[in-house]
Amino acid sequence: MKRAIMLAKKGMGYTNPNPMVGAVIVKDGNIIGEGYHKTYGTAHAEVHALNNCKVNPEGATMYVTLEPCSHIGKTPPCVDAIIGHGINEVVIGMIDPNPLVAGKGVQKLQNQGIDVTYGMLESEVKSLNRMFMKYVTTKQPYCILKSAMTLDGKIATKIGDSQWVTGELARQHVHELRHQMSGIMVGIGTVLADNPRLTTRLRKRKGKNPIRIILDTTCRIPLDAALLREEGKTIICTGNHASPLKIKKLQEMGVEVYMSNERDGRLDMACIMDYLGDRGIDSVLIEGGSSVSSSALEAGVVDEVMMFIAPKIIGGKHAKSPVGGEGVAWMRDAIGLVDIEIETLGTDILIKGKVEEA
Amino acid sequence: MKRAIMLAKKGMGYTNPNPMVGAVIVKDGNIIGEGYHKTYGTAHAEVHALNNCKVNPEGATMYVTLEPCSHIGKTPPCVDAIIGHGINEVVIGMIDPNPLVAGKGVQKLQNQGIDVTYGMLESEVKSLNRMFMKYVTTKQPYCILKSAMTLDGKIATKIGDSQWVTGELARQHVHELRHQMSGIMVGIGTVLADNPRLTTRLRKRKGKNPIRIILDTTCRIPLDAALLREEGKTIICTGNHASPLKIKKLQEMGVEVYMSNERDGRLDMACIMDYLGDRGIDSVLIEGGSSVSSSALEAGVVDEVMMFIAPKIIGGKHAKSPVGGEGVAWMRDAIGLVDIEIETLGTDILIKGKVEEA
Repeated sequence: MKRAIMLAKKGMGYTNPNPMVGAVIVKDGNIIGEGYHKTYGTAHAEVHALNNCKVNPEGATMYVTLEPCSHIGKTPPCVDAIIGHGINEVVIGMIDPNPLVAGKGVQKLQNQGIDVTYGMLESEVKSLNRMFMKYVTTKQPYCILKSAMTLDGKIATKIGDSQWVTGELARQHVHELRHQMSGIMVGIGTVLADNPRLTTRLRKRKGKNPIRIILDTTCRIPLDAALLREEGKTIICTGNHASPLKIKKLQEMGVEVYMSNERDGRLDMACIMDYLGDRGIDSVLIEGGSSVSSSALEAGVVDEVMMFIAPKIIGGKHAKSPVGGEGVAWMRDAIGLVDIEIETLGTDILIKGKVEEA
Repeated sequence: MKRAIMLAKKGMGYTNPNPMVGAVIVKDGNIIGEGYHKTYGTAHAEVHALNNCKVNPEGATMYVTLEPCSHIGKTPPCVDAIIGHGINEVVIGMIDPNPLVAGKGVQKLQNQGIDVTYGMLESEVKSLNRMFMKYVTTKQPYCILKSAMTLDGKIATKIGDSQWVTGELARQHVHELRHQMSGIMVGIGTVLADNPRLTTRLRKRKGKNPIRIILDTTCRIPLDAALLREEGKTIICTGNHASPLKIKKLQEMGVEVYMSNERDGRLDMACIMDYLGDRGIDSVLIEGGSSVSSSALEAGVVDEVMMFIAPKIIGGKHAKSPVGGEGVAWMRDAIGLVDIEIETLGTDILIKGKVEEA
């Protein structure tokens, strides 16, 4: 199963909104075939593993990270292939989280007399597919809020200089994240201040650009913004007071414009997430400044927080901190984070945590 | 030497402004005596170890964390005792950092034909006595800036609620620090907002209260402030516009009042540190809010930063962050921290670092 998880990770960034899945076939104590789900819409891990078998898989055991599918989607059901190849035993990491199909694959296999066990390394598999799990059960994208601050809690100096808070290794880590997520979200403030490209720039391989999602209540984005010239899609989320002419121009440039509801003069984050989910976007990296971060947290759409901390101090009572907005009045009303993990990246520190259920 | 360091640590909090020193005497492969410097003004570690010997130490080897003294201070020179007891070999952790006496102990021992080596576990011993090292070489206190913030960089909510940012374990750690340091410094803002006691409250033993140092430019401290009723000394640092009557009242209550120079309407931190150094205070824990922290950092008096981080988010563009003041304009002018160490304390995280030399 460890090997199956490792194989599954090879699909990272390419399978969305499908899960990452790996499969290993073992016969007489030897691995005779393995495979993983490579990209959305193509063959599943189980089929790759069966097709790659060096010897006849009849009577073999299959280790697969996720319950094999029993329905016809973009490809035929995997359970049929497993049954057809005479597999004797199937060991599963986690049951399909989709309540409509959960357990059906197991049942179909068992009906054919195949020995099925599940729950092996389950927490690891679940963590790997946490984005898929949320998306398939709620149709809402899994959101990671990412920010980078100095050790005195600031994302930029008093005059707005933020290049760079963290070092090269931490920034590379963010590009890996961009590759893994379907969408990247920033506010118009960030676009106007930094003119970012919001692309994935990996060192050793070509990454996948996430769909760029810009929160821009009054549609102020300059038509020559760097990100509009990049490969891949851009969605501008705007409000009722946006200029129809500007919207038309953007659409003519191939930009998708989404007219969102507003709440208290700001775009309605929950409404935007509904739209993105419908659009097939299973995961969003929120790299916004202070204001977008607070909107996302207040709307309750954030699943996970990743805070990069640089070991330096810049001071400044007017320098911005990672989360602005109104904020809570009492410490006891803070949003709690759990499952905390700490990593070091060069001299920088990454603190990750999941947003605690209310 | 590891045992000598462990013994030295037993004096933590009681030896200031003396160093923590431990000594172990070994003969024929057995520890025959050991000791540590217990409190300022009393016998040194070497003398304790010699006096505690179970057998005659003649011909034995002494392991001692710091070069034995060769001058008469509050107690007679240790080298004479070592020579007098017929010790054959002395192994030293670090040479005395005081440039006026450094190496003299070694020389005197060598002159008597005693075998001397030094530098064993030196970095560990130096770290243990970093406060003493700074104080003895500069007559300035070693300053640790301590703060506690949420993961979004705030020390209090928008309305100033800061109870509590961190959990019980982290707060206990701060009380351990208070016990170890000679002084604790806060600004009058903290006194007026929280009315703190600034005492050491340890769980399992009675700790030593640090001298309370309050930065109070216009002498606004209420005469009934909680900290004025606590055991131990308080020093109020005030400026030229303080009311002489108020100062007189405080002095009558047994409070020490220091009239500091001012710079741009704020107390001159460098001048205060000079005074505290002259006063025999070798170490100060700066637990100030935003404003005191920035004054201390800007004045360049901070040696070390300890940032406690709680895994929660409170938001708020008007919530204070750990270091206020003006701040730098450019990220490249940040104060760098080195020798970063990360600890977890319950669910909280402590990031420590030394201020990088300019």
